[in-house]
Amino acid sequence: MQLIHTLKEAYLAYEAKQSFNPTYPTLYNPADYILKLGGKKMRPVMLLLANHVMGGELEKALPAAYAVEMFHNFTLMHDDIMDKAEMRRGQPSVHIKYNTNQAILSGDALAIMAYEYVLSNYSPELGWNLLRIFNKMALEVCEGQQMDMDFEEMDEVEISQYFKMIELKTSVLIGAAMQMGALIGGASDEQAMHLYEYCKNAGIAFQVQDDVLDTFGDQAKTGKRVGGDILNNKKTYLYLKSLDLASANEKERLNELFSSISSDEQAKIDEVKGIYKNVHVMEYASQVMEAYMQLSDSHAKSLELETEKEAFLLKFSSMLVQRES
Amino acid sequence: MQLIHTLKEAYLAYEAKQSFNPTYPTLYNPADYILKLGGKKMRPVMLLLANHVMGGELEKALPAAYAVEMFHNFTLMHDDIMDKAEMRRGQPSVHIKYNTNQAILSGDALAIMAYEYVLSNYSPELGWNLLRIFNKMALEVCEGQQMDMDFEEMDEVEISQYFKMIELKTSVLIGAAMQMGALIGGASDEQAMHLYEYCKNAGIAFQVQDDVLDTFGDQAKTGKRVGGDILNNKKTYLYLKSLDLASANEKERLNELFSSISSDEQAKIDEVKGIYKNVHVMEYASQVMEAYMQLSDSHAKSLELETEKEAFLLKFSSMLVQRES
Repeated sequence: MQLIHTLKEAYLAYEAKQSFNPTYPTLYNPADYILKLGGKKMRPVMLLLANHVMGGELEKALPAAYAVEMFHNFTLMHDDIMDKAEMRRGQPSVHIKYNTNQAILSGDALAIMAYEYVLSNYSPELGWNLLRIFNKMALEVCEGQQMDMDFEEMDEVEISQYFKMIELKTSVLIGAAMQMGALIGGASDEQAMHLYEYCKNAGIAFQVQDDVLDTFGDQAKTGKRVGGDILNNKKTYLYLKSLDLASANEKERLNELFSSISSDEQAKIDEVKGIYKNVHVMEYASQVMEAYMQLSDSHAKSLELETEKEAFLLKFSSMLVQRES
Repeated sequence: MQLIHTLKEAYLAYEAKQSFNPTYPTLYNPADYILKLGGKKMRPVMLLLANHVMGGELEKALPAAYAVEMFHNFTLMHDDIMDKAEMRRGQPSVHIKYNTNQAILSGDALAIMAYEYVLSNYSPELGWNLLRIFNKMALEVCEGQQMDMDFEEMDEVEISQYFKMIELKTSVLIGAAMQMGALIGGASDEQAMHLYEYCKNAGIAFQVQDDVLDTFGDQAKTGKRVGGDILNNKKTYLYLKSLDLASANEKERLNELFSSISSDEQAKIDEVKGIYKNVHVMEYASQVMEAYMQLSDSHAKSLELETEKEAFLLKFSSMLVQRES
């Protein structure tokens, strides 16, 4: 995946050269802070990748890549307030380092700056199409965050609702990044839509894998405490599907465990994992990831690219979901 | 001002027909709530007025008018959190009626919906120009809110900074509303810029008058408690200019009064008003409003409209600032 590395380096070099209006440091320093916390820069890289696959020039896609990364960081700033997440990429979240009011306002400004990068760097013809995709995605991300918040209050969440939530909250953003990159690279609307679907469906598989790793992963590899979702009573795929599969007793017990905070954290994690294993939920998770990856692959193939490029896309999405890239 | 009344009725009829995606009631109900709290609808009406003056069709300007009103209400939702304002138009603010997280997220969605109305209702050629104006304004409004927040922490605020703050926080929005309306109505970029400046400068005079009314107004007419700014230690024009004009003793006393919360509220209001009167700050306020109105008028005249339309604009801005419209 040398190409991914090259695109990421190019993106980072571009990002490092950008700066916010120095007249308002209190407004823009928090934006600068979160962008410099690092992260995988997955979204801008995927935009650049789609542009590259369609034969576009790297330079032309960089401002849109930065816009997508800014938008993503805006959502992190606001989501971290809502989710009471005190850490982000191993450092204090913006509302902890600064304060909640500042995280609200700097987040707003960062979102608006994202639009500004599209408006200032593209022609009306291309830019208009980019903004329509971007804005549709932006609204869907809000709807996904809302569903996630609503789930906390709901007694019963259907698995279809769970998939809709992760699609909106995380997958449409990477899908839109690729769709935008494709258009910048000269793709037809249809090709751009295939890249959107390729990426969106891989993104859903990625998110299911994320849930799996949170519960069954290796802390040394993921860097996150195993069982975090269980302790936070998060209604993940594993939990929802296990409810479907469980016996009456197991179902009751799962409901009990997920409606309280346990004093013995490890015992709770172990008991829930025990039920998950009993009902063989991992087999279902693998099947569902497989199905989304097949859907993703079919869109990659519909692009009718050169063999080498097609193979690259198929390998890339697979490595992404398996966390090998 | 029959025309203003007619435009407002047309706007209200349009707004009443719009609805948000019913799939996500928790997300959009707060947006619906704040829009239905009423308010003067000054910004959309001004957009429609500029469109009308330039000979445009009413129907074509309505979506942009709604976009501007949605954006304004997004800023209110977030500002009310930051300012800890529990009431809005006589009703609980969104973060009080719902909760802070919901006000953050629904505000975000409302801002994005504002962009959506421009993206969905205009051609790329016109819409691109509208969005460039809109987005520049959106960023400036954030910068103005930031300046306002920064002022609370600053020992010394210069009067020029105060004017920059009110320009950004409130005037650029009505200016941009008129500029957008003008372009929809077929104005040249230059004409649209004159309407922007006409409205922005009248808006600054309006804001100074707002400060004056807060301190010297008649509660029966304004509906607000007289002296609110004094009790909140707000660094308004009256306060800042009085510091310039005051004797050393008065200056020290003003500083003292504005750096603490008084237990005897009426005594504080009376003492501050006493100093304001001693230094004749109202004469300066009148002069500065006059200067901004002259600037506003000069831009209205630069439009070279028919005599009747020009007279209407001059009368309208004057009535607006005097709160007679």
